[in-house]
Amino acid sequence: MKMSPAIQDLIDALRHLPGVGPKSAQRMTLHLLERDREAAESLGEALLAALSRVQQCQRCRNFTELTICEICGDPKRDDSLLCVVETPADVLAIEHTGSYRGLYFVLMGHLSPLDGIGPKELGLDSLEVLLEQETISEVILATNPTVEGEATGHYIAEMANRNKILVSRIAHGVPLGGELEYIDATTLAHALGGRKVVSPE
Amino acid sequence: MKMSPAIQDLIDALRHLPGVGPKSAQRMTLHLLERDREAAESLGEALLAALSRVQQCQRCRNFTELTICEICGDPKRDDSLLCVVETPADVLAIEHTGSYRGLYFVLMGHLSPLDGIGPKELGLDSLEVLLEQETISEVILATNPTVEGEATGHYIAEMANRNKILVSRIAHGVPLGGELEYIDATTLAHALGGRKVVSPE
Repeated sequence: MKMSPAIQDLIDALRHLPGVGPKSAQRMTLHLLERDREAAESLGEALLAALSRVQQCQRCRNFTELTICEICGDPKRDDSLLCVVETPADVLAIEHTGSYRGLYFVLMGHLSPLDGIGPKELGLDSLEVLLEQETISEVILATNPTVEGEATGHYIAEMANRNKILVSRIAHGVPLGGELEYIDATTLAHALGGRKVVSPE
Repeated sequence: MKMSPAIQDLIDALRHLPGVGPKSAQRMTLHLLERDREAAESLGEALLAALSRVQQCQRCRNFTELTICEICGDPKRDDSLLCVVETPADVLAIEHTGSYRGLYFVLMGHLSPLDGIGPKELGLDSLEVLLEQETISEVILATNPTVEGEATGHYIAEMANRNKILVSRIAHGVPLGGELEYIDATTLAHALGGRKVVSPE
């Protein structure tokens, strides 16, 4: 069946969203047109507004509408701690815990030479400037525990070493509530290797 | 954490899509901002274009950019057959089979008095006019096999009876490729009740 071009365009555009296949895109399109035209309008406007207003923080590279983001500009945060993460979603996850009061640096990816992502693409040159000029006492590596994430973390650790800054890595092991039986072998090996003495204290 | 308002607005707007929860909406937002700004822009534009251009066909109520949709306006289709469906998605599903060459009437829902959806909201007044004025020889009911769908079909069957038009209902039973073991009892009871003699022919 020949679909109305405006409808087909909308289905095609929705398929660019992560996790949305042809069936979901069709369902979303018809839902918006049938029952939620207001939501469709506000989504269209929110998309264009976000595109025109959201940029990257000049200090930490996280998304913001300001030149320096709210976290970097908050005088109540501890600017001696710098947590390096791969994505803005990681910042949200850490902020959600409520247990970190330092600053961030968002790589927007990880080193991946085959995809043309080198130190420059991750803003590591500006991270180096940051490490040199600010009074950072500890760099906390929170890159993902993947091969690329570890390599990226290693690269940053060396940069921090050159600047005589303490480097730490967030702990990896069995997640709370996780049952040993269902944990993958690599995680379990990691948890064993990273065991801590509990007694005598 | 206080999110940038433009980002939060986008996350909230994406949550109105069917099947999208808070986590997916956040993932979609960051994906669009990080990696696919072009897709975000074309999605925003496609939404606003669809809203301004897509309306309902004045004959069959399906979505179209024209006054009379392409199916209703196609002289090669059999205008003596009228298939009544609940949603535009149902039209797509039937068109996809390639085995129907008649016309459609799209209810955009089913009778649901508690939600304030009566005959008028489903356009049954214009369906009545259609049945009176056009030379329709058969109305095929393809509403969903739910209580509301059946009630809606029953209502339309009576309208067609008043106009002395043949009414049929699409067959319900075990889907092809379905295994009896996994079919729900209601469907199986329906399939038994609707059994056909195959021998002697």
